[in-house]
Amino acid sequence: MIEIFGHGGDMETAAAVFGRRAADFVDFSANINPLGPPPEVREALRSGLRAVIRYPDPGHRTLKSLLSRSLQLAPEWIGIGNGAAECMALVLLALAPARVGIVEPCFSEYAELAAKFGAEVSRVYGRASQQWRADKAEMIALMEEVDVLFLGQPNNPNGVQYGQEELDALAAASARTGTVLVVDEAFTDFIPAERRVSLLESLERYPNVILIRSMTKFYAIPGLRLGYAVAHPGMIRRLSAKQVTWSVNGLALLAGEACLQAGADYEERTLELVQTERERLLTGLAELGCAAIPGEANYLLIRAPGMWRAAELQEALGRRAILIRSCAMYPGLSENHFRIAVKDRKDNLLLLDTLGRVLEEERRDR
Amino acid sequence: MIEIFGHGGDMETAAAVFGRRAADFVDFSANINPLGPPPEVREALRSGLRAVIRYPDPGHRTLKSLLSRSLQLAPEWIGIGNGAAECMALVLLALAPARVGIVEPCFSEYAELAAKFGAEVSRVYGRASQQWRADKAEMIALMEEVDVLFLGQPNNPNGVQYGQEELDALAAASARTGTVLVVDEAFTDFIPAERRVSLLESLERYPNVILIRSMTKFYAIPGLRLGYAVAHPGMIRRLSAKQVTWSVNGLALLAGEACLQAGADYEERTLELVQTERERLLTGLAELGCAAIPGEANYLLIRAPGMWRAAELQEALGRRAILIRSCAMYPGLSENHFRIAVKDRKDNLLLLDTLGRVLEEERRDR
Repeated sequence: MIEIFGHGGDMETAAAVFGRRAADFVDFSANINPLGPPPEVREALRSGLRAVIRYPDPGHRTLKSLLSRSLQLAPEWIGIGNGAAECMALVLLALAPARVGIVEPCFSEYAELAAKFGAEVSRVYGRASQQWRADKAEMIALMEEVDVLFLGQPNNPNGVQYGQEELDALAAASARTGTVLVVDEAFTDFIPAERRVSLLESLERYPNVILIRSMTKFYAIPGLRLGYAVAHPGMIRRLSAKQVTWSVNGLALLAGEACLQAGADYEERTLELVQTERERLLTGLAELGCAAIPGEANYLLIRAPGMWRAAELQEALGRRAILIRSCAMYPGLSENHFRIAVKDRKDNLLLLDTLGRVLEEERRDR
Repeated sequence: MIEIFGHGGDMETAAAVFGRRAADFVDFSANINPLGPPPEVREALRSGLRAVIRYPDPGHRTLKSLLSRSLQLAPEWIGIGNGAAECMALVLLALAPARVGIVEPCFSEYAELAAKFGAEVSRVYGRASQQWRADKAEMIALMEEVDVLFLGQPNNPNGVQYGQEELDALAAASARTGTVLVVDEAFTDFIPAERRVSLLESLERYPNVILIRSMTKFYAIPGLRLGYAVAHPGMIRRLSAKQVTWSVNGLALLAGEACLQAGADYEERTLELVQTERERLLTGLAELGCAAIPGEANYLLIRAPGMWRAAELQEALGRRAILIRSCAMYPGLSENHFRIAVKDRKDNLLLLDTLGRVLEEERRDR
């Protein structure tokens, strides 16, 4: 078990558990763009020492104005955060909800943050028959009870989206009930624009809706921390009022600016790679008897074949320097579930090959 | 007035106000080591792209263990923060004080953070006759009333320290009253070890004392954000329980590790430079009729001569591409007070020369 902090991507723990150097692992446990940062970002960071010797702009003005152009919304609709996780924390600090609703299985930080800042958590559960999506009626009923509802779109770990009609219904419920609907769109950039389902276009109608996005997954800069919230200006002001001065570091701002000035080429190559490689993984996993949910993002939720527990697979693969994310601790899932990132061809082939050998060899041993 | 966010070092605002590029200013408004980051840090950042494509270690394990060695305290006594400002915020989030005490004039974030997180602020004031130090008895009386007391050591903006006997008395009062004493040592590294006054050595005796340190001023990396709290393990656990996962970014951790592995040479050169240049500034300022408090840190609090208001001087110098920090907004100080950083010889000579010409020319114009 390497998720001692509740998340994937913890290379220090993996190194200690499996007795290898952190750099030696092929990491399928964190969902990061396999292309790495765009060339513009690498260049900005290389020449960015000046951003280090100065305080970051506490108003995030340049990045906000670039995002404003890209989202076609005035800067007042945007709040920059020290990662999407800080944006979520600011929601809890600003709104001080007594009750927070979540839709399991989901990103564990929703419940973690609720506990951290003193809110009680109420849950509804996705259904296996709906690829772990929850019923709309159950989510709306939950909204009657809670002050804030967190929803992943696409959701993590299953990678599926809700439809536009469902999102609209939840947004309408937020207007009626006063419950703030927080839609976590951290992975939405991995979905081609024509298939992306979002409340962004209709945000003006919904003062109780907050979209949270991440720039660190798609642009492969999780070490820098950068996310943002999009909502009505009054809501953004409430969140910003709880943010600690200089919370967003200068290199994150610089990298974010470079991301938004990067050409469409990086975006297109990413979407193409993820689509091709996701297909490769889905086919290969099926051949190995692993049932994967055909998610739309850059990760796949998988049920291990036979009696394999995720922890056993993680252990067997970890010894072979491959990290996967056990999903046994997600409420609603079983101890057989695990998640993998969609990586590049070479890594994905390595995973399929190693997984195949593990399943085969260990079957012999049993 | 360029302190629209309440602090110095805001180059974007200065650029807008004075119609110049941010890079063109010589900035005396933020107190950063004029040597710039140690070579080890520059090298670590150059080769640090791998830290960007991975999540930061949420446990800050390597940096903590290096700090543990340098402070001669077990890692459990140390909490790493996204800048000293986050450490202060965590104190307020963890302890949820109803009343916070501060000793004016001081770093404006103490009161800002108290307001942000719902605490009422009570104040005592330093005395001009004591270089703006407050009376010990008044601070202890304040501790009877408040749940948390913030104290700068050395204090910002006047740069002076309290004596060991005074600190010990406040620490003893914290044990008696239950008030948590937060000593902000953000600039203590700029004071030679033999003159540094701290509660670090006696921390074991005082479970209600928290020391907060910054690594961004001395090591010239304010853009990266890095600070830490030192306190009893139980107190550190309370602070950490309120910290958002991955709050400290990966490059800050990497840079911090490099700082602690840097040789003693950088430290010695910094202390020598700051001492020499502070003397140069004190002499030059006196010749210009500016009364400066002989602070021990890398900045000086100055009273402008004659009827000069700080805002006027800031404006006149800003037009000449030099930024100073107006201190007119510090409760307890006057509209004639300003603060400058101690920079290198060339910059300091430029400041003295330009300030001399401004005072001379503008006197003629009046």
